Amino acid sequence: MISKATQLGIPLRPHFKTHQSVEVGRWFRELGVDRIAVSSLPMAKYFATDGWNNITVAVPFVPQHGEMANDLASKIELTLTASTVNGAKEISEKIFENVNVMIEVDTGQGRSGFNPTNFKGIENAIELITKTNNLSFSGFLTHAGHSYKAKPSEIELLNAMAIFEVVELKKRWINRFPQITISYGDTPTSVLASNFDGVDELRPGNFTFFDMQQSSRGVCSPSSIAVALVCPVIAVYADECKAVIWGGAVHLSKDSYLLRSGEASFGAVCNVNSDLSWSSPIDGLFLESVSQEHGVVRAKNSQLLRNLKEGDLVAILPAHSCLTADTMGEYLVLGEGMVGTMRKRT
Amino acid sequence: MISKATQLGIPLRPHFKTHQSVEVGRWFRELGVDRIAVSSLPMAKYFATDGWNNITVAVPFVPQHGEMANDLASKIELTLTASTVNGAKEISEKIFENVNVMIEVDTGQGRSGFNPTNFKGIENAIELITKTNNLSFSGFLTHAGHSYKAKPSEIELLNAMAIFEVVELKKRWINRFPQITISYGDTPTSVLASNFDGVDELRPGNFTFFDMQQSSRGVCSPSSIAVALVCPVIAVYADECKAVIWGGAVHLSKDSYLLRSGEASFGAVCNVNSDLSWSSPIDGLFLESVSQEHGVVRAKNSQLLRNLKEGDLVAILPAHSCLTADTMGEYLVLGEGMVGTMRKRT
Repeated sequence: MISKATQLGIPLRPHFKTHQSVEVGRWFRELGVDRIAVSSLPMAKYFATDGWNNITVAVPFVPQHGEMANDLASKIELTLTASTVNGAKEISEKIFENVNVMIEVDTGQGRSGFNPTNFKGIENAIELITKTNNLSFSGFLTHAGHSYKAKPSEIELLNAMAIFEVVELKKRWINRFPQITISYGDTPTSVLASNFDGVDELRPGNFTFFDMQQSSRGVCSPSSIAVALVCPVIAVYADECKAVIWGGAVHLSKDSYLLRSGEASFGAVCNVNSDLSWSSPIDGLFLESVSQEHGVVRAKNSQLLRNLKEGDLVAILPAHSCLTADTMGEYLVLGEGMVGTMRKRT
Repeated sequence: MISKATQLGIPLRPHFKTHQSVEVGRWFRELGVDRIAVSSLPMAKYFATDGWNNITVAVPFVPQHGEMANDLASKIELTLTASTVNGAKEISEKIFENVNVMIEVDTGQGRSGFNPTNFKGIENAIELITKTNNLSFSGFLTHAGHSYKAKPSEIELLNAMAIFEVVELKKRWINRFPQITISYGDTPTSVLASNFDGVDELRPGNFTFFDMQQSSRGVCSPSSIAVALVCPVIAVYADECKAVIWGGAVHLSKDSYLLRSGEASFGAVCNVNSDLSWSSPIDGLFLESVSQEHGVVRAKNSQLLRNLKEGDLVAILPAHSCLTADTMGEYLVLGEGMVGTMRKRT
């Protein structure tokens, strides 16, 4: 991703919500990354303690976090997100330190952000920001998250349409605010699309680990997935084409992806090597369901389970790596040791 | 639940996986509960530190937990679960302290446990247990978890069929093993069914908090739900019949229930009082989707959102309280203060 951003000439602002770990963050810093996005003020605070001094909170401002934001903004370059007129008002009323504000635009995901044709609302928000001396209007931010549900063949067009919408807004306001930029980029578009003209920074996160949702949609290969949950096998029912692992919703969270057959899967099943690295997914096995601490592995045929026994380990490539990482709260880095996250368990 | 178990004359062994908190556990103890079920050896260890000395681990034995099991069994009355022949073998080989072993039977959920007609497999497991001096075969355990997907009108029959299957097994072996018992009971059957003849202990967990999955299936009323996630509103789009809260999959986990309309909901939306208690669910609002830290509240009409603004608080009644409790890792007990869980976040 760093190579691609460099080739495009667009600064990369990786979204650290995927890994939530200062240690993993350092790997990015060693490769030259100097700015990041996060999904909450507490997360911004956490990464600031490790020396990150240019952080965008890419989620609508939480008014309850005013004090935390002021405290952080007195120390680092902080960018907040205004996603409604009243959100901009809350920022203008609660923030008295120097802060950049981006206006969030909904370019098709249907989650948060201004409708890109709501010029009046956007103008009102800009006014609230620009009339406040300590706030700096710094442009438009969008997350084209509908790309997570698109086919690879649809990504280039989806990407062009999403960028078009924010570039039109930038054109409309750039004469009055020459400093404004566009912050853009989810993992599917950042990986698969080629044309980012008009974009001033790329902000993907999931690419850090990838996962089976991305793999099942052609964004990555399973061999690119950088995180797995190693689980003990606790019951094998080969005749029923089923095995049970100690690995459930409290470990993996509960997101799924679709197999080519149309069935939902909660993870791909791999063999585990002695150093805890893992094989490519085993053909014909998938994680059919998860309850609190059980996971049910389904096999296409009983033969696939004949050599599996209670006490064996399997590695599960998660459906959604960000949620699995959050649920577990720490990582074993192969050959190195444990590293924590901001949401480590006691 | 304690009243019902008392009336039935069946000891209650509440499943503490729902709350995972020694403080919440003490409320049960104060009401006379003296035995519990848990979903892992680490959870058994955690509750044993608070004085619980009769604990059943109601998940297939994890061979990697042999040492932890021996350590715990030297201090308390520990019951482990054998769900396959080889699982029984693992217990017989790894456990050298006095331990009770229950044989898990699958009475229709399709998750773990022996098929109740697999007499040969069950006999082999019993032999492995009984030939090991320190192990005590203590009966049959089942979780009729398919009750979670049943209609209230189907529960009595489902309950009768599940109990019939384990009672038949008890009859088959009780002459040789007069001490054997039946451990039974998920929340839907324990709440709704009336006939538990042959059952020796009830083992529900979710009733501790209930949740919208249970409410949507007629097991409880929304007013019986004892846990909620208070979330700030961060973006209101009344014209689009939508609001966004800071409350996503990392807070609620990602389980859902069905509204009467057939739509999936990730939680019910309530008003919050000044003491952080909450109202009944607001008619016409529901949590339509969750991503990592965003939740999208959908409104039947825009009027429902006219008085809502950024910075307001709403309470979300979770789809699945056990997973939300695990994800958050601690509780604010109204009028008292914070209490932790075994999976508290740092």
